[in-house]
Amino acid sequence: MKLKELLLGLPVEKIVGDCEVEILSPRSWERAECGNITLAVNRRIWESRESVSASAVITDSRLDSNYLSGRVGGGTLVLAVHPLYLWAKVLERFIVLGEETGVSPMALVDPTAVLGRRVSVGPFAVIGPRVTIGEETKIGAHTVVERDVVVGRRCALHPRVVLREGSILGDRVILYPGVVIGSDGFGFTPSPEGLPYKVPQLGRVRIEDDVEIGANSCVDRAALDETVISRGVKIDNLVQVAHNVRIGEGTIVAGMTGIAGSTTIGAGCLIGGGVGIADHVKIGDGAILAARTGVSGDVEAGAKMAGTPMMEMRVWQRLFGHLRRFDTLLERIESLEKNAK
Amino acid sequence: MKLKELLLGLPVEKIVGDCEVEILSPRSWERAECGNITLAVNRRIWESRESVSASAVITDSRLDSNYLSGRVGGGTLVLAVHPLYLWAKVLERFIVLGEETGVSPMALVDPTAVLGRRVSVGPFAVIGPRVTIGEETKIGAHTVVERDVVVGRRCALHPRVVLREGSILGDRVILYPGVVIGSDGFGFTPSPEGLPYKVPQLGRVRIEDDVEIGANSCVDRAALDETVISRGVKIDNLVQVAHNVRIGEGTIVAGMTGIAGSTTIGAGCLIGGGVGIADHVKIGDGAILAARTGVSGDVEAGAKMAGTPMMEMRVWQRLFGHLRRFDTLLERIESLEKNAK
Amino acid sequence: MKLKELLLGLPVEKIVGDCEVEILSPRSWERAECGNITLAVNRRIWESRESVSASAVITDSRLDSNYLSGRVGGGTLVLAVHPLYLWAKVLERFIVLGEETGVSPMALVDPTAVLGRRVSVGPFAVIGPRVTIGEETKIGAHTVVERDVVVGRRCALHPRVVLREGSILGDRVILYPGVVIGSDGFGFTPSPEGLPYKVPQLGRVRIEDDVEIGANSCVDRAALDETVISRGVKIDNLVQVAHNVRIGEGTIVAGMTGIAGSTTIGAGCLIGGGVGIADHVKIGDGAILAARTGVSGDVEAGAKMAGTPMMEMRVWQRLFGHLRRFDTLLERIESLEKNAK
Repeated sequence: MKLKELLLGLPVEKIVGDCEVEILSPRSWERAECGNITLAVNRRIWESRESVSASAVITDSRLDSNYLSGRVGGGTLVLAVHPLYLWAKVLERFIVLGEETGVSPMALVDPTAVLGRRVSVGPFAVIGPRVTIGEETKIGAHTVVERDVVVGRRCALHPRVVLREGSILGDRVILYPGVVIGSDGFGFTPSPEGLPYKVPQLGRVRIEDDVEIGANSCVDRAALDETVISRGVKIDNLVQVAHNVRIGEGTIVAGMTGIAGSTTIGAGCLIGGGVGIADHVKIGDGAILAARTGVSGDVEAGAKMAGTPMMEMRVWQRLFGHLRRFDTLLERIESLEKNAK
Repeated sequence: MKLKELLLGLPVEKIVGDCEVEILSPRSWERAECGNITLAVNRRIWESRESVSASAVITDSRLDSNYLSGRVGGGTLVLAVHPLYLWAKVLERFIVLGEETGVSPMALVDPTAVLGRRVSVGPFAVIGPRVTIGEETKIGAHTVVERDVVVGRRCALHPRVVLREGSILGDRVILYPGVVIGSDGFGFTPSPEGLPYKVPQLGRVRIEDDVEIGANSCVDRAALDETVISRGVKIDNLVQVAHNVRIGEGTIVAGMTGIAGSTTIGAGCLIGGGVGIADHVKIGDGAILAARTGVSGDVEAGAKMAGTPMMEMRVWQRLFGHLRRFDTLLERIESLEKNAK
Repeated sequence: MKLKELLLGLPVEKIVGDCEVEILSPRSWERAECGNITLAVNRRIWESRESVSASAVITDSRLDSNYLSGRVGGGTLVLAVHPLYLWAKVLERFIVLGEETGVSPMALVDPTAVLGRRVSVGPFAVIGPRVTIGEETKIGAHTVVERDVVVGRRCALHPRVVLREGSILGDRVILYPGVVIGSDGFGFTPSPEGLPYKVPQLGRVRIEDDVEIGANSCVDRAALDETVISRGVKIDNLVQVAHNVRIGEGTIVAGMTGIAGSTTIGAGCLIGGGVGIADHVKIGDGAILAARTGVSGDVEAGAKMAGTPMMEMRVWQRLFGHLRRFDTLLERIESLEKNAK
């Protein structure tokens, strides 16, 4: 494909060089060769540009003009205001789709389920009573959609997802293999005999448009009301979202993170990997939680937190700087003690 | 349903108000309206009671009598010695059961398996040779029960559980979607050539009555003997229980916790989320481990631990109080140093 | 079986006692009785040897000769240079294999897939277009092998594994139930409207010979190139390996560990449970990371690290020794302050 065809309709600021060059595939900066399009947004990477033989390089249109004076190892420069976004758009054109399958004869679809136009259902999938599935949604092999679930349009449910009864999904939701939506929340109360006694979990899960949830992650149903994953939220693999949690629009949650019951997370937050968030906590919009933060209380909007127990990120960094030099602190105290004698 | 019908046979201490009031559904305190029954055990919540229009409120019979003087926004008060337990019992009456299905014609049940009366088996479930399943147990779609497994009565195995060969389950065990029971323990020894060499895992898993295990959690088979989850243990989602572990009666393990090999945990322990417990450790009865504790050694019965590495909870709290004020400590040392000059 | 038959062809250094003794099964030291073979490599265990009635005991040929003077409760001593390796070899002889099944008539194998000699495929497994599976490999029930996957010889894929499209597996790979290989990496870029926008994940996963991956663990496909798990790597349950990660030969990764994107781990490393490793980090060969280490930067070959944020293990141990005695430190400062007045 010619570069100009590849970029047709995409948000390009300016092209420096030959836009007729032939592009075969995208590749990382380190491995890019003739026939490849690649990405360079990092200045350090950029400085090695003379050794690169990619046919085209996407980069930031705000790079100093002197960086743009020479061409990159002979390749064409593609300048964009949002170069990573352009890169994502270019990569989309190289996605190879699987064969269209329709509804597999090996799937089990309840006669009361309603499937929209061009829905595909993989082999051994189970679609329960009164389920509704929107147009062009793909249900993977072995996925189980229990009774009374509503799935929107153009969703992709990978193989082996479980949606428990009554769950509600918006449009363009992607659930990766092994995801479990709507399992019982973890609620117990001591019985008069002293053993933990199960509190029934009667609520449901609601997942809004454009959400992605990674492999083997879990979102539990609410005790009574709804667990809510808002529009555009992205959740990585092996994440636990407990009952009654609400996550605001566009928040990103990295892998191995656990969010305990009834906690509310704002919009546009960045939550690192391995974070643990206590129950009944409120986290404001735009908060940033460093990887492995242990959140034991509320977090203000826009705050940057780290550590267990959590502190403001700058306080935590200073503290651990001190702790690393703890020996010198001890020496100073010993020296004071000697003087005092 | 009338309130008095809803409460029939349940452990109520006293009813203050109209017991003929019509109850349609349970709801949380914040959302309760006319026709709802709700729960208020927290005094702070209780103080907002005048704004609540629930038709009935379950509460603690030990609340000060002056709290009980007025009715709650006109609703009936239901007093109980164990209000949370009563609440659980009330909620049970609102559980909507799925359709009874029996053994799906799409399930694969080995001819040597023995199924008790009224067992149901979902579509595409696989029941292996010589498996025994007790009366009224439900096996979900896609669940795999390997050879020689014994499952007790009235268990609920949700869709997509795997029970590996030889596992033993008691009665009323609940396993949520994605649970893996009896996978190989993680045991390796250096081969003479230096690469890790697998030590065969020949033991099994035994799970006693009334245990619940959350979505995508794993309990590994013992190397030689048994990994044991005792009666009434409740395990949350995404928990790892390694080979040879033993967990005592009624212990609660919150999500994202990992328990390493050959560790023994007593009865009635409370283990928070994201806890990591080292191998070959002994934890006494009734111990409490705060969320994210890193347990590196034995824990005495009744102890309350926190932190990584773990300390007694009150020591840990005091220490982190000091660490948060580390700057003032440094100032004190600097001031001493100035004086000393 | 006679002991000498059991040990036939195995790397034994010396046998002290009767090698005609009958062995029925292996058992742990604590439970071993007549008819059992057991293992004792730990000196503390060894001192209780007189109470043991095992028929045979495997032990280290380097144990002091005086330990070897008496026989163990009458049992035969089996001395080996690598006693744990010998033990693993002995245990292998007690593995009871499941019934040979061949390709289940309930499996769905695409006509373009190529299966080697003596491949078995469990019921409801799905083998996609153009998949290649090597000789004697076992595919468990419900396992999904998507299009264009290559699986080597003598692999064991347990029930309910998902291999997404294009994944490549070497020989003798073991994947436990619930493993997800090749799910999309977690890559997003802000869209011009500010919500996270998905960066397509076009790479694949390559898993080399003799790798094992534990239940419900996930290895994501690379963004463009390959995520690589090298020969002999052993990964425990509930581990997350993000896109573009490379793990070197023979490295061991314990449960609940998360490895973020584009990180490179050397050969022969030992990575404890609950470790979190940041993205774009390099860890040298033979490094040891204590359980729950938070790896925020590069680690040198052979280094031993611990803590969050990580420090050298000995620094960390000393620091936490000091922190545990923090109260006495405060007292020393207070005492200095009193003197200064």
